[in-house]
Amino acid sequence: MRKLLILLLTVPYFATAQSSQDSLNIKKMADEIMRNGKAYDLLRELTKQIGGRLAGSPQQQNAAIWGKRNLEAFQADKVYFQAVKTPNWKRGGNDFAAISAINGKAQLRPMKALALGNSLGSNGLIEAEVIVFASFDEMEKRKDDIKGKVVYFHSVFDPTKFQTFRAYAESGVFRRVGPSRAAKYGAVGVMIHSLSTATDNEPHTGSMVYDEAYPKIPALALGPEDAKELYELSKKLTVRVQLQTYGFFLPDADENNVVAELKGSEFPEEIITVGGHLDSWDINEGAHDDGAGIVQTMEILRTMKAINYRPKRTIRFVLFANEENGMRGGNEYANQAKMNQEKHIYALESDEGGFTPRSIGISCSKEQWKKFQAWSPLFKPFGGELTLGGTGADIGPLVKVNPAIVLSGLIPDSQRYFDLHHAKTDVFENVNKRELLLGAVNMAAIIYLIDQHGTNP
Amino acid sequence: MRKLLILLLTVPYFATAQSSQDSLNIKKMADEIMRNGKAYDLLRELTKQIGGRLAGSPQQQNAAIWGKRNLEAFQADKVYFQAVKTPNWKRGGNDFAAISAINGKAQLRPMKALALGNSLGSNGLIEAEVIVFASFDEMEKRKDDIKGKVVYFHSVFDPTKFQTFRAYAESGVFRRVGPSRAAKYGAVGVMIHSLSTATDNEPHTGSMVYDEAYPKIPALALGPEDAKELYELSKKLTVRVQLQTYGFFLPDADENNVVAELKGSEFPEEIITVGGHLDSWDINEGAHDDGAGIVQTMEILRTMKAINYRPKRTIRFVLFANEENGMRGGNEYANQAKMNQEKHIYALESDEGGFTPRSIGISCSKEQWKKFQAWSPLFKPFGGELTLGGTGADIGPLVKVNPAIVLSGLIPDSQRYFDLHHAKTDVFENVNKRELLLGAVNMAAIIYLIDQHGTNP
Repeated sequence: MRKLLILLLTVPYFATAQSSQDSLNIKKMADEIMRNGKAYDLLRELTKQIGGRLAGSPQQQNAAIWGKRNLEAFQADKVYFQAVKTPNWKRGGNDFAAISAINGKAQLRPMKALALGNSLGSNGLIEAEVIVFASFDEMEKRKDDIKGKVVYFHSVFDPTKFQTFRAYAESGVFRRVGPSRAAKYGAVGVMIHSLSTATDNEPHTGSMVYDEAYPKIPALALGPEDAKELYELSKKLTVRVQLQTYGFFLPDADENNVVAELKGSEFPEEIITVGGHLDSWDINEGAHDDGAGIVQTMEILRTMKAINYRPKRTIRFVLFANEENGMRGGNEYANQAKMNQEKHIYALESDEGGFTPRSIGISCSKEQWKKFQAWSPLFKPFGGELTLGGTGADIGPLVKVNPAIVLSGLIPDSQRYFDLHHAKTDVFENVNKRELLLGAVNMAAIIYLIDQHGTNP
Repeated sequence: MRKLLILLLTVPYFATAQSSQDSLNIKKMADEIMRNGKAYDLLRELTKQIGGRLAGSPQQQNAAIWGKRNLEAFQADKVYFQAVKTPNWKRGGNDFAAISAINGKAQLRPMKALALGNSLGSNGLIEAEVIVFASFDEMEKRKDDIKGKVVYFHSVFDPTKFQTFRAYAESGVFRRVGPSRAAKYGAVGVMIHSLSTATDNEPHTGSMVYDEAYPKIPALALGPEDAKELYELSKKLTVRVQLQTYGFFLPDADENNVVAELKGSEFPEEIITVGGHLDSWDINEGAHDDGAGIVQTMEILRTMKAINYRPKRTIRFVLFANEENGMRGGNEYANQAKMNQEKHIYALESDEGGFTPRSIGISCSKEQWKKFQAWSPLFKPFGGELTLGGTGADIGPLVKVNPAIVLSGLIPDSQRYFDLHHAKTDVFENVNKRELLLGAVNMAAIIYLIDQHGTNP
């Protein structure tokens, strides 16, 4: 009885003391980041000195060298390149789209347009009638009308979805598989409404994948205003369009994941990964996507060293080589991990923009969630919390290494993200310093907690 | 026993059915706002066609007329002006500040500066040595060194405060009372570090109040970069500055609160107020401060009419005439309410910017909070929640009418607000459409719930 009493008294006391120590250590990291954070200056360098960095570009090579140099300067225990073969797609020219005739009457109304990533060039100017669909169901019903035409998919976002990533997932299907679905019925080209929430007319690129069974027709995203005009016109009138694109592939490129490591002092074999992807599209600075995730990752290393934090487990800070048009970086990281029989217990990615953090989303078992949920109040002083469900494209392949790995993602406020995602407006000027740093604070907090307490329930 | 059982079964069932009906009605309003909202277009009109609208300016007169016309067009039961005498401060010229000598060596380094609102002109160019203080304590210790000098208060924000309004409250005291505190010891002018979180060099104005006991010396806010440079220089060297301002007051102006009303069908005597303030500073478009609150208020009226919502209680949509440099709008609204013996049960203000809503903050009794807290999950689909504590400058005076009134405020994400608050960067382009509309959604939801269920615990 006496023993039980002591236990009853001790456990909560210990839990409180531990949680209070965690709270102090997290506050220490947070203060360091908010006062002396370098993430914003690093982002300025990455976006303004290096710029857009599609896999295979000289900029991507420079970005990897820049990342390695800075991670070394922040005094990781070791920093190394991990070779990755990436796709090497080139836009090849200035994409062109225009309305060329309405009801038989010739006229030229250029539209703002960007070829979709991985799409192939049109081999000269294409001119054809437009046929409009707001869904694949609509298309199936009129599949016999498609031959020889350009299909326009009216892939607008549902404005009533608070979580804009859900609207993106719904509309995004037209970008990813629309071109081949239309080519199947004889379309000669595909245009989509940009996957955009913006009030401007900027087109948004992004990757698509051809189905090898059908002709590889050109595919473009139109600026939202031009797309809406085309949609309205085509509903009532016969509209013809011109389009020309230039996309092509060079042989796969030699790129690198950049990996920095802090060696664990107690459980060095247990690996925690935090990262983002270094590549971006060619037409912008990749500031939010995913420069933000890159510099937040680097900031956490800097901060841990600055406050002399010595981790119990091994922490890897990874700048993945290629996400946008191939996912090769994350896949290679997982391949190497599997080959080396590494023990990966947890991974965190930041790839939803450098906006104010709303939560860290965690994918784990019910039993683990009980443990993590108890940490949630520790994030409140920094505007965050822990929520169930979350991961990242680059860390996803780690389930091949450890099916029980806990995956997670920084979930920032998503209202502005699709205003600029894959558009030329994704530039440094649209990233806010405090918001970017607060993301790093919330990320540092979860990395710290996992490092201290592991992932076992 | 049987009766008790029925009660036990009925109450939760009723509660669930009611809550489910509430959820449906709120979703209906939310969909209407996100799909057909006019708030963003109204804000464009207010900021681009009318512009900055300090009390006493022709723009402020135009804004009131514009507001009344639109509230009428949205078919309120009645719309009327409520006369308000407001201060009529004029900036009077291009405020000037410069470093003029360092360690006796003449040089001219102009600094970006704005006179503080309500401050009086310098009557010509002032030239004097600078003395620097980071706190009033420091100033008190060196009060004998102040005579004949210009005091510079290093009123920088604490970057570690997640809630930026707390940092603002701390540093803001230098703006509000710093000039007279320095004049007391013989200072000839005061400069402060702008109350800014921005990474730019824009000065931020804002109101100050003279203590009638001391000379009314000129007072300016410096751009953050210039302020930091002045601070660093003055710590080690003798720095002299020049400054010139032109502020003056005309006789009080005749302005108007704009009030629109939906008459309650069941409890017309119970009044719910929602509003923002129509005035802004002279040097920007007042887009976030408080154009956002104005157009969100108007949006709620539009939406209730659009979905044919007939309120039980009387809802007032109020565009307050003057907040920035006098608080006269809110005071007059409360005066009239008291004179007319109105029964005010609830008021909501939006005056913290048009950013993504984080919560509706409510000030109420413990018993009421239990009732309101149960509604909190209804806000989750729109990114919000209900939190304890919140009000607004314009609705605050209503406690004089009903000490038990429930006051509340929209609490948006605050990370960007002080980047542009009272600076020339507070323009339409820095407001995001979705964020603005989501604020209106969360506001509409709480107005609806209070209208349906009242404020009694």
